[in-house]
Amino acid sequence: MAESLFPVTEYRRRVATLQAHMHNADMAAVLLTLPADVFYITGVLTRFWESPARPWFVVVPAVGDPIAVIPSIGEFLMRQHWVKDVRTWNAPDPEDDGVSLLAQTLKEVLPKRGRLGVPMGIETHVRMPMADYQRLENALAPRSVVDATEVVQRTREVKSEAEIDKIRTACHIAAAAFDRVAEFAKAGVPLDQVFRSFQMALLDEGADWVSYLAGAAGQGGYGDVISPASGTPLVAGDVLMLDTGAVKDGYFCDFDRNFAVSQVSRETQRVHEALFAATETALSDIRPGMRACDVHQLMCDDLMARGVTPGAGRLGHGLGLTLTEWPSFTPLDQTVLRAGMVLTLEPSGHVDETRLLVHEENLVLRDTGAELLSPRAASQLPRLE
Amino acid sequence: MAESLFPVTEYRRRVATLQAHMHNADMAAVLLTLPADVFYITGVLTRFWESPARPWFVVVPAVGDPIAVIPSIGEFLMRQHWVKDVRTWNAPDPEDDGVSLLAQTLKEVLPKRGRLGVPMGIETHVRMPMADYQRLENALAPRSVVDATEVVQRTREVKSEAEIDKIRTACHIAAAAFDRVAEFAKAGVPLDQVFRSFQMALLDEGADWVSYLAGAAGQGGYGDVISPASGTPLVAGDVLMLDTGAVKDGYFCDFDRNFAVSQVSRETQRVHEALFAATETALSDIRPGMRACDVHQLMCDDLMARGVTPGAGRLGHGLGLTLTEWPSFTPLDQTVLRAGMVLTLEPSGHVDETRLLVHEENLVLRDTGAELLSPRAASQLPRLE
Repeated sequence: MAESLFPVTEYRRRVATLQAHMHNADMAAVLLTLPADVFYITGVLTRFWESPARPWFVVVPAVGDPIAVIPSIGEFLMRQHWVKDVRTWNAPDPEDDGVSLLAQTLKEVLPKRGRLGVPMGIETHVRMPMADYQRLENALAPRSVVDATEVVQRTREVKSEAEIDKIRTACHIAAAAFDRVAEFAKAGVPLDQVFRSFQMALLDEGADWVSYLAGAAGQGGYGDVISPASGTPLVAGDVLMLDTGAVKDGYFCDFDRNFAVSQVSRETQRVHEALFAATETALSDIRPGMRACDVHQLMCDDLMARGVTPGAGRLGHGLGLTLTEWPSFTPLDQTVLRAGMVLTLEPSGHVDETRLLVHEENLVLRDTGAELLSPRAASQLPRLE
Repeated sequence: MAESLFPVTEYRRRVATLQAHMHNADMAAVLLTLPADVFYITGVLTRFWESPARPWFVVVPAVGDPIAVIPSIGEFLMRQHWVKDVRTWNAPDPEDDGVSLLAQTLKEVLPKRGRLGVPMGIETHVRMPMADYQRLENALAPRSVVDATEVVQRTREVKSEAEIDKIRTACHIAAAAFDRVAEFAKAGVPLDQVFRSFQMALLDEGADWVSYLAGAAGQGGYGDVISPASGTPLVAGDVLMLDTGAVKDGYFCDFDRNFAVSQVSRETQRVHEALFAATETALSDIRPGMRACDVHQLMCDDLMARGVTPGAGRLGHGLGLTLTEWPSFTPLDQTVLRAGMVLTLEPSGHVDETRLLVHEENLVLRDTGAELLSPRAASQLPRLE
């Protein structure tokens, strides 16, 4: 039996906010297909998404409650939650995998010239077969399909206190696991064994599951932050970095910690100190009303003033129902920051041309500035002996 | 530093097989966007897919080696592998997130009237923003885009011996963890704690990560198999079911085990025995040349002959680079079984109207029939005291 993670009022508030944005964008309905959006609106949390076999659909009309159009295998779970209009088909069906049922449902809520919103922009995809999506568009004509990315993002990006509590809990679980790294990581231990032990520590500290763990180890720095672990043992002089997205009640943390295996060079320590300082600056200066690109500039300027070349990628991003959410701290992202956004600061800096370090913290943006969700890293690299 | 999981010859054989199917379907190139397809062709394995922020593209031309068109953050990892033509952009870019680079690349390999294959059918989606996909289609005109689902499925569904070894290893890791369930699960232990302990056991036994764990516990059976765990303690008379997709070197197992908490009713035992027997029948009779629907019929007939009503969903499916792959053992799936397919048998049966049991094994289909990959379950429900 699934336990409801939030009271029904929370879901009703979410739908009302989405509908207000839909009204402004003249949308008669929105179609959602992504796991995070389905969880956000209905409360249904499942790891069943790991199977690519079956699409799920949630229709939010301009007025009234959402409608779930889902494979019958999901009905039991959906009915434990607040959405009452649940329509099912026996999936997977190679002839008609829910397309007619979905088209019929959408025609009920869309006037003949009505606009259907579908998230089609950055950070989204449509989780159904492309041929079925094209069939759906044809079935809905002359109704038009328009991009609902903004409508969904402006709704989801401001987290409720209940959501912030979930993310804070995930952060504290990860922090407790990071505090135990010295128990299982030292020179001689293969990196893949460190990864296994760290995931076990996360579970032991209360994570429901560990959706993401990346990391690296290298002499004085690392070249990459997205590789799986190799069997290479740690050696003295390595920096070990672990970056985790542990999940509690469907909400993610996303931060990393760096460790010095025995001793690392002064230069490596200097870069880590600069990353810590740039994070301090951003934590102190970030405010609602700034744009994402302003935060990027802030951290770059701070690093460069300290003689460290920033990494080329984004220096942080949104966080919550997925490991990463909009906005992105890049020079190109003009998204305006709002109170209630949960964000990561993730400055990276080069030790030399091929090696870098990455440091990361999680925060919620308040009217008055940043409130840390991840217990602050040590300013000095912790040593593993 | 990433270690190559297969020799380059393995990837070259995969591409050659794909290109043979493409030739028959008159495709000048195939565009792949899904993590499993990227891993299959390039060897790049990463958990970075957990972030929805950045699309990755692999282009397989009719002749010659694949081309990777990827975010620059993936370049280091991609270059550890065999694909030499790696083109990058600095993602996420809200103005042009790789679309022009991809369109330019595709125009190089597609003649003016050439057909581009994109998987668009069942079990697929296109992992890029819909608006970008539509922009891409427009940029490629007059070249046409056609469905490459069959082309990819016929290639991937026949596993090499090296792939089968990976899946077998994942199955043996899960079996070793299942053997330890009695150490941490008994009456009084909350189900969510059982889930955590089981994931820790999987990691301890050598899983790289645990992408899927579902399960249930209920008096004499359960109503659902996709829910996350609640905090409800196990009680005597419950059947505990754990169903895992643990990952080793990027390959999945997918099977479950049922346990009796102290004692369960004769009726529940009888249904479990019938599921075991139906699996025996399928293991004994399954052969290349049968269709997926024939295997469904075989298990349904066997269960009904034993007085057990089969569950309404599919009774098994393909397995490998994702938790579930085609085909599906349903009445509707006409896919012809081939030697080298890795499959799950997953018969479910009703204890009564609201409760069912599900039993699952993994096998590789040989010319002569089934070879089990999951060590066979006990015919009687193991007891947890």
